[in-house]
Amino acid sequence: MKARIYVTLRKGVLDPQGKAIQRSLSHLGMEGVDEVRVGKFMEVTLAEMARPEAEKLLEEACRRLLANTVIEDFSFEIEG
Amino acid sequence: MKARIYVTLRKGVLDPQGKAIQRSLSHLGMEGVDEVRVGKFMEVTLAEMARPEAEKLLEEACRRLLANTVIEDFSFEIEG
Repeated sequence: MKARIYVTLRKGVLDPQGKAIQRSLSHLGMEGVDEVRVGKFMEVTLAEMARPEAEKLLEEACRRLLANTVIEDFSFEIEG
Repeated sequence: MKARIYVTLRKGVLDPQGKAIQRSLSHLGMEGVDEVRVGKFMEVTLAEMARPEAEKLLEEACRRLLANTVIEDFSFEIEG
């Protein structure tokens, strides 16, 4: 069972890494990128379990370890 | 115009960060996660341009700046 987790900065939280990327692209001559926001994502392989159980596990993993919910949002999708 | 870029480690490349996350989850009592692979993803806002042009821009951005193609794969999707 596979899942994908996305952790992104909340709206309004500054993203200096994204800003640096946007400027670097411009310096490299690649114009047309107005904004870049950087996030993490994780490809997770889960043991066989019922879907509601998997959702509970991923939710808990995000809240307790993977995301800082003060400044980050998370979402996930379970495949298949 | 919005796009999402995904940069992931190639198959076979060790991912110590993912391994550490997997172990931490287990130590926190969250069993059932067999493997974690960590990647980056970027939400990009592009100026208005034709879709083929946007694809070319994103491809070039990934190759020249965002991904290390020796050890990383990239993909992107353009919204709308």
